[in-house]
Amino acid sequence: MNNEEYLYLDHAATTLMREEAFEAFKKTEIDAYANSSGGHALSRKAKNILEDCRDYIASCFGAAPNEITFTSGGTESDNWIIKSIYSENKSKQGKLVTSKIEHEAVLSSAEWLQSKGYDVEYLSCNKNGVIDLEELKSNWSSNISLVSIMYANNETGVIQPIQEFSKYIKQKDRKVIFHSDVVQAVSTEKLDFHKLGIDSAAISAHKIGGPKGIGVMFLSSKFKIPSFFHGGKQELERRAGTVNVSGVAALSAALDVQQRNLEIEKTIINNERNIFEEKLKQSLDVEVVGQNTQRLCHISNIQFKNFNSETLMIAFDLNGLGVSRGSACASGAQKPSHVLVAMNIPQKHINSHLRFSFGWTTKTGDGLRAADKVIKTIKEMN
Amino acid sequence: MNNEEYLYLDHAATTLMREEAFEAFKKTEIDAYANSSGGHALSRKAKNILEDCRDYIASCFGAAPNEITFTSGGTESDNWIIKSIYSENKSKQGKLVTSKIEHEAVLSSAEWLQSKGYDVEYLSCNKNGVIDLEELKSNWSSNISLVSIMYANNETGVIQPIQEFSKYIKQKDRKVIFHSDVVQAVSTEKLDFHKLGIDSAAISAHKIGGPKGIGVMFLSSKFKIPSFFHGGKQELERRAGTVNVSGVAALSAALDVQQRNLEIEKTIINNERNIFEEKLKQSLDVEVVGQNTQRLCHISNIQFKNFNSETLMIAFDLNGLGVSRGSACASGAQKPSHVLVAMNIPQKHINSHLRFSFGWTTKTGDGLRAADKVIKTIKEMN
Repeated sequence: MNNEEYLYLDHAATTLMREEAFEAFKKTEIDAYANSSGGHALSRKAKNILEDCRDYIASCFGAAPNEITFTSGGTESDNWIIKSIYSENKSKQGKLVTSKIEHEAVLSSAEWLQSKGYDVEYLSCNKNGVIDLEELKSNWSSNISLVSIMYANNETGVIQPIQEFSKYIKQKDRKVIFHSDVVQAVSTEKLDFHKLGIDSAAISAHKIGGPKGIGVMFLSSKFKIPSFFHGGKQELERRAGTVNVSGVAALSAALDVQQRNLEIEKTIINNERNIFEEKLKQSLDVEVVGQNTQRLCHISNIQFKNFNSETLMIAFDLNGLGVSRGSACASGAQKPSHVLVAMNIPQKHINSHLRFSFGWTTKTGDGLRAADKVIKTIKEMN
Repeated sequence: MNNEEYLYLDHAATTLMREEAFEAFKKTEIDAYANSSGGHALSRKAKNILEDCRDYIASCFGAAPNEITFTSGGTESDNWIIKSIYSENKSKQGKLVTSKIEHEAVLSSAEWLQSKGYDVEYLSCNKNGVIDLEELKSNWSSNISLVSIMYANNETGVIQPIQEFSKYIKQKDRKVIFHSDVVQAVSTEKLDFHKLGIDSAAISAHKIGGPKGIGVMFLSSKFKIPSFFHGGKQELERRAGTVNVSGVAALSAALDVQQRNLEIEKTIINNERNIFEEKLKQSLDVEVVGQNTQRLCHISNIQFKNFNSETLMIAFDLNGLGVSRGSACASGAQKPSHVLVAMNIPQKHINSHLRFSFGWTTKTGDGLRAADKVIKTIKEMN
């Protein structure tokens, strides 16, 4: 397969690592490869890089450096915060509220809590994929200890009313942690956690052009949670394990390029996504999910009526277009997307959706090229 | 600081990433950057690399591919297996047996179990740092569910009687999981898990010349444990989260070079370590920990009578020699090493130990150069 000719529209699953991230990675692994917890000069050099990166990364999200802990990725961060409310003492088991359309890392951690006897409430969403705040309001109870609502959905790109959620929760009970999985959002949105009223957030470097295997756990200094990894005293004794300093440096470098180019990148991505959707709507019997509501600019979830998404994905792939049935994390499982089910997509269309996602390597013309490939493939299939 | 002149003897904390590992990392991130769980050609390419690496890595340790799960490192692997015996049901709480000299990742996970009401037994070691199998024999009980004994100690390099432990445990109860933290050992030892009778093992790539942030959890196909990370269905549904394929490829490449050069590397490391120790013993009032027992060839734990290790480490550092007080993971904590305490090192000498550790970049002459730096520094201090 020639990557040059292949049109990759699966950036929401992961995107190409930026050159600046490689350079930072390699430079750190060569110049400061020591363990950042050591007591000699090379370790101090590694530690300094780590703390400089922490300062910078924190500043990108309006956070304080001590609110940033490095993890192995979004899944670890989500697991950490959701499971942090676990207590073996039944009388201390607070309730978790989340939504039906969260990422699997949140949903499976919630199911883990349920398996331990926890009360978990899953909020519904409307037909546009927006999570229902009113449901939270009408079911509010004093035993809630954590609310987890994603900033934007990873399959549809639909942005959630995070500030409204936060405002309501804070007004009801300031002891409740408001967590948000922002893994998908940070690809194309500039976020300020404190301004948004988020207490805790999960980030993955590889969605921004950093490497896989490194992520961030943001936790407001107002809260403390038990460790998820026990062992050495790294990361202010919050997360044990030799710190992946080169990964952190790569994330920091990727973020730096991204932040500087965000408006330009977003403009291109948004244009190409819109051209793509318009062209499809003109030529085919398709529906764009969430088109009447606010969405991330890089995700397009399309319903191809009377087509099976698995068949389509394979056909597109053979024509040099790489897309996804939904979350890569759920692939393999052939069951319908839990997000589309929650949106009440009619049963006959539920397996007719594909996610097209644009990213920082998207070029002008890609939207049209992609639409042409889709249209050509579908015409061949008819 | 000029890294050329600086003599790095802290390889046990972490070692330089091998060039071949960089190349594999970068090649994978460029040629097959897609999410290995996706359904298109670029994802399949990533998935193929992942599975080829799994096959190769498994073969290096005498394991089957499906016995290898990729984690973020040794600490995650240790946490996963130790905490896997947790049950909120008191009647199902089996006992954990480990030793007083385990790595912090094991000990802190054991303490976590204790905090949940678990019975944990910590085996003693003799004055050479060898864990006492007889103590296990005399205290054997039918409720033991996991025994965790490191292959070799990370502070002293002392190799443990792993096969004897395994033989005894298997003879008593085949349902007991025998876990071994082999993180330090794999730097210079060729291990076959099934031949050793190990059911579960933790590995970190960065000790072999791979990147930080990637590791292995080996679990014999005879056993099943619950997941530690919940979410997507990656890694046969054992460990959720986008797989760090480039990290895996880098680990695989590092391991490939290491396995091919192991005898040559070991010979150099062993020679230099011995020259270093001999020279010190001739010139100074020092004691080499565990010198009368089998040790990993790359670690030298030295007692400098009447010197404080913290002061010495700083003085060595200023003279261009990077060493460690013990485990990097415990640094910052100024309390005496739990390993030396368990070995009954007299109180007056317990803060006089430093760990010198050699590695794959060690060159002929480094042992003597290091000894000269040590001797010169100590003479300046007298």
